[in-house]
Amino acid sequence: MADPTTSPPLTRTSVQAAHAIVKPYIHLTPILTSTTLNTIASTPQTPESLVGTPYEDQTPARPTFNLFFKCENLQKIGAFKARGAFHAISRLAPKERAKGVITHSSGNHAQATALAARTFGIPAHIVMPSISTASKVASTRSLGAQVYFSGSTAPERLEALSAVQAANPGAVTVPPYDHPDIILGQGTVVLEFEDQVQGQLDGKGGLDAVIAPLGGGGLLAGIATAMQGTGVRVFGAEPAYQGGNDGQRGLAAGKRVEEVSTLTIADGLRTPVGLLNWTVISDVEKVRGVFSVSEEQIKAALRLVLERMKVVIEPSAAVPLAVVLFDEEFRRLVEREAGEGGWNVGVVFSGGNTTVEAIGKLFAEEGEKATA
Amino acid sequence: MADPTTSPPLTRTSVQAAHAIVKPYIHLTPILTSTTLNTIASTPQTPESLVGTPYEDQTPARPTFNLFFKCENLQKIGAFKARGAFHAISRLAPKERAKGVITHSSGNHAQATALAARTFGIPAHIVMPSISTASKVASTRSLGAQVYFSGSTAPERLEALSAVQAANPGAVTVPPYDHPDIILGQGTVVLEFEDQVQGQLDGKGGLDAVIAPLGGGGLLAGIATAMQGTGVRVFGAEPAYQGGNDGQRGLAAGKRVEEVSTLTIADGLRTPVGLLNWTVISDVEKVRGVFSVSEEQIKAALRLVLERMKVVIEPSAAVPLAVVLFDEEFRRLVEREAGEGGWNVGVVFSGGNTTVEAIGKLFAEEGEKATA
Repeated sequence: MADPTTSPPLTRTSVQAAHAIVKPYIHLTPILTSTTLNTIASTPQTPESLVGTPYEDQTPARPTFNLFFKCENLQKIGAFKARGAFHAISRLAPKERAKGVITHSSGNHAQATALAARTFGIPAHIVMPSISTASKVASTRSLGAQVYFSGSTAPERLEALSAVQAANPGAVTVPPYDHPDIILGQGTVVLEFEDQVQGQLDGKGGLDAVIAPLGGGGLLAGIATAMQGTGVRVFGAEPAYQGGNDGQRGLAAGKRVEEVSTLTIADGLRTPVGLLNWTVISDVEKVRGVFSVSEEQIKAALRLVLERMKVVIEPSAAVPLAVVLFDEEFRRLVEREAGEGGWNVGVVFSGGNTTVEAIGKLFAEEGEKATA
Repeated sequence: MADPTTSPPLTRTSVQAAHAIVKPYIHLTPILTSTTLNTIASTPQTPESLVGTPYEDQTPARPTFNLFFKCENLQKIGAFKARGAFHAISRLAPKERAKGVITHSSGNHAQATALAARTFGIPAHIVMPSISTASKVASTRSLGAQVYFSGSTAPERLEALSAVQAANPGAVTVPPYDHPDIILGQGTVVLEFEDQVQGQLDGKGGLDAVIAPLGGGGLLAGIATAMQGTGVRVFGAEPAYQGGNDGQRGLAAGKRVEEVSTLTIADGLRTPVGLLNWTVISDVEKVRGVFSVSEEQIKAALRLVLERMKVVIEPSAAVPLAVVLFDEEFRRLVEREAGEGGWNVGVVFSGGNTTVEAIGKLFAEEGEKATA
């Protein structure tokens, strides 16, 4: 692994420096707004939808949202992960880098690492679970990476990684999320987001808050690091299914949850929060709160993005919008703190790597019934 | 019906005047480009994919495409139809307009007419087939229109329209495509497209050609009218399934095909070309050619737009891209006429009104097999 002790400190200035490094390699992804989504988000939920929640029989919150969406689904390789991978690999000394990089991932980090390695003309060795979908394996290979298969358990993966490392001495491991170089790279997304929203508002205001998905925590820790001292509140969003809300549960218990086993549809958010990321995310000065939503709520948010905004995102990327629309605790917080003027809330669309078949399966049982 | 003899002539100047009229009511929709799509489009098809076509055993064409996509899926009501409806209703005298408008449509024209009527504060009476999907009826109603149901045959529809007309004397019919006011309104899309492409190319060139879907023909006739005298070539794209390529067949026979009965997935393109639209489209000085593609080719193009470009369009809107990617006759024409430098080709994404269920059904049988 790249030695974390040689990384820059986790500060806003370091994220700015990371941005200068990765900028030539990544897309400045666009931001979107949607009158329809603002209207829906700013309409109180129905009393029925609160039945069975702690807010049953209470007046639904009336928050006012002015939403901005940062389209990292249009980032290179279709996800924000390109930022961290380019930053981490850029920071390796050329001589060290030349020996190649190793990582394991079934998803976006695999492709991000493959793309960054190809860009630097170095070998990429990627361990993927043998159950990975053919399309993901093919697109990792099409970026020039060597793919190795392993079983799905942690010991099986480690065994495969050791074998690859032994066969490629000197190759450097690029971890998927729990490393300062990765955190600083992912944080760059919000520097652009800030500028773009200020530009769109013609200098009359900017982001009041940002909400991003929380899985391993690289993205959220990066955003929180970048926003330190700016007054912009940072929130995390998780799937609740089968304990996928390990971040939220850890904060409640005052202790990081170390293991998670969930098959949530938000498949990018199935991992527990990393150790280093936890130190950032559990600092209330940096992350104001983490909220979680049900599978049905994620699907309802995803449907709105696909059908109303006409934008393709993956289920994990719909989780923050689901919190905005359906988490009554979050909505009360915004109503209370923002008041009538409401908040300009930045929602990070973290990625868009899905298939038409996956979309079909997700909504196969739904028919045309209501979506909340 | 609004008297077509009082409409402006079908000239580029009239389209420019129409644009000045509708501009305040519509979105200036963005244009997109895609390196991935340019690469795919500029790669020759495999010899295998030409088996069974007239080009079997010939060397696949090597055209060079620089594609630009005009996102009318992000237009108000999710389709270009808003342009024609706003133009037609704007041109009615206020006194005439006040009595309301009538139309029939199961699709985007219903919503476009409803929105324009609501904007002018006048009643909209919309006849829809009783088999229309619940979501389309609901969204037409949510725009304030009164919805009436009819059977699906032409006589049943006419009967319903007569009854609505009798009950609402003075209300004006807004036809879906075959009327000069509609044609001029739809044509406005390409004036924006021209400007946007020139802007993006920094004055170093502009569109060499535009390709748009051909159903009733309002959009294609409008584009052809707007492009007269500019040197920009105009092409139409149709579904071939069950004779849905009535425009192409009519051009070959030198005579408009008056009836079509196809259940192509490109459901916005099931109607035959209108009489007035035919006079424009059959003029080779205005429309250079019409090409058609199979259902599988439409699906393959749609998949690329959803999965690679991360943009949601409806199947009808994928038909022009399918021609670019898969119609060997069109590809040979571009190779021959454009030469090595290739052409800047504008592809009109005509609309984005679909549902996650419809996407699911479309690709349910596909699995992860190759998409060409």
